[in-house]
Amino acid sequence: MAACKLLTRERATQLLANIDTVLTDCDGVLWQGMEALPGAAKTIAKLREMGKRVLFVTNNSTKSRLSYVEKFKNLGFEANEDEVYGTAYIAALYLKNIAKVTGKVYLVGNTEMAKELDLQGISYTGTGPDPIEGTVTDWKTLPLDPEVTTVLIGFDEHLSYMKMIKAASYLSNENVQFVATNTDEKLPVGNGRVIPGTGCILAAVHTAADRDPIILGKPSKFMFEVMKEKFDLDPNRTLMIGDKLNTDIMLGHNCGLTTLLVLSGVTSLEEARQMQASNSIEHQKCVPHYYLPNMGELGDLL
Amino acid sequence: MAACKLLTRERATQLLANIDTVLTDCDGVLWQGMEALPGAAKTIAKLREMGKRVLFVTNNSTKSRLSYVEKFKNLGFEANEDEVYGTAYIAALYLKNIAKVTGKVYLVGNTEMAKELDLQGISYTGTGPDPIEGTVTDWKTLPLDPEVTTVLIGFDEHLSYMKMIKAASYLSNENVQFVATNTDEKLPVGNGRVIPGTGCILAAVHTAADRDPIILGKPSKFMFEVMKEKFDLDPNRTLMIGDKLNTDIMLGHNCGLTTLLVLSGVTSLEEARQMQASNSIEHQKCVPHYYLPNMGELGDLL
Repeated sequence: MAACKLLTRERATQLLANIDTVLTDCDGVLWQGMEALPGAAKTIAKLREMGKRVLFVTNNSTKSRLSYVEKFKNLGFEANEDEVYGTAYIAALYLKNIAKVTGKVYLVGNTEMAKELDLQGISYTGTGPDPIEGTVTDWKTLPLDPEVTTVLIGFDEHLSYMKMIKAASYLSNENVQFVATNTDEKLPVGNGRVIPGTGCILAAVHTAADRDPIILGKPSKFMFEVMKEKFDLDPNRTLMIGDKLNTDIMLGHNCGLTTLLVLSGVTSLEEARQMQASNSIEHQKCVPHYYLPNMGELGDLL
Repeated sequence: MAACKLLTRERATQLLANIDTVLTDCDGVLWQGMEALPGAAKTIAKLREMGKRVLFVTNNSTKSRLSYVEKFKNLGFEANEDEVYGTAYIAALYLKNIAKVTGKVYLVGNTEMAKELDLQGISYTGTGPDPIEGTVTDWKTLPLDPEVTTVLIGFDEHLSYMKMIKAASYLSNENVQFVATNTDEKLPVGNGRVIPGTGCILAAVHTAADRDPIILGKPSKFMFEVMKEKFDLDPNRTLMIGDKLNTDIMLGHNCGLTTLLVLSGVTSLEEARQMQASNSIEHQKCVPHYYLPNMGELGDLL
């Protein structure tokens, strides 16, 4: 059972001696929106100097690998395409290699997800605005594309009731696969504003479809399995760093990794302690082994 | 415990002798969309001839009382405004008399809900299309109306990501009330099409808001409490007729009514039997006392 200990210098030295690979979440750990968090880039550089492999693991589906590389560069981080695992890429990979999609994907998603589907040679339909028209009489006979074999849900700022009808209607055929990038509920931005996450879009479709989707993002093991195979990773020698308990930290527990919570994102130490005090198995999977105020502090300890 | 018995002529005679008031759901019981179900109007007329009070109870929020009276007339039923309880009306009533709303309602709903709010003198904002614009940078500082004190969710074919941001942002203030008409998941229309219900719209907002709404529609007791007070109803002498287990039949159980399931809507006898075979208390609340193929049959038994 993880103990949620402060990562002291001594513990950090001991921990890093037994680690080859560091997986890190991005938003809330390396940056907040478009601003790099202080010291994070330096910590990443230091880990690499120490010979650690660093891989970036994010549930955010709004960027292709190429767009992420661009963002890393703009915010002062170094990363190449192979080191970045976002759910836009991972979804395309899953549909190509595991689901072995034939026909078309009905995409409730975004243009970056579409780019990754293009790179895997997967056909799709559904991106961009699709506002509701007509009345229930028209909706009952809405034209559907007979080639659609898969519904993929990711972040889609153009979600509309029309898209909900289409997604739910395709999914009423049990042979149509139901796949989603992630279930993150929201991006809390303070200031009395809440930016709903893909989990909200998925909840709408899920409720109508009355079927459970395959979820690819953290805490699902799939992303780690892909990285593990690609880089021959040893879970016992891998550290997962993140700011969210039920995605980052739970992924670590699900895959047998050591976990480090940073408090620079969506989670307070108090929330982690509440999980620790709970008897629920699900909550215990959200308790990190270690915590630190932020990524900059980790660099200072090394 | 309810036994889900076929309502025979003998049982019907016995049952009706002990009933003063009949509550009936509409869609799937009296009509399907814009078509009256055979014999339903005759059954309603017969019940009234027998001296029973008939009240109409629907979770559908897309019609005001006045519009319902119109629909009843068009489909060959007689009903006056006072006999129709839809969630558009009931929501306005709740906000006026129970929640005692001051300020404005942010409405994720429709023009018929707006009409009922007007009748109760409640201010609102939010109806009609509100497509997403800008990027996350803009959304983080989206203008909000400081007068909004309540978020009301009902059926809204113009649901958009912009509305989801606004609703979730208003709800991040814990003093803002969170009210929803109903949680119906979908209107199954066959033909490979699914029409998502208010439950889908609510699920999207609920996931972002991370707060539980007050739900007014069946199976919540609120609608029955309003009718009970208005007409001095005796639950022991009231029959609830409906086609949906987790709304109509559960409402009956929640309020101590006798329940009759008709199989002309969304539920099969097999589904009712599955509930009966379950040990779950929630499922037991979905088991009707009686069932019949449809409302026409009830008329034939009387």
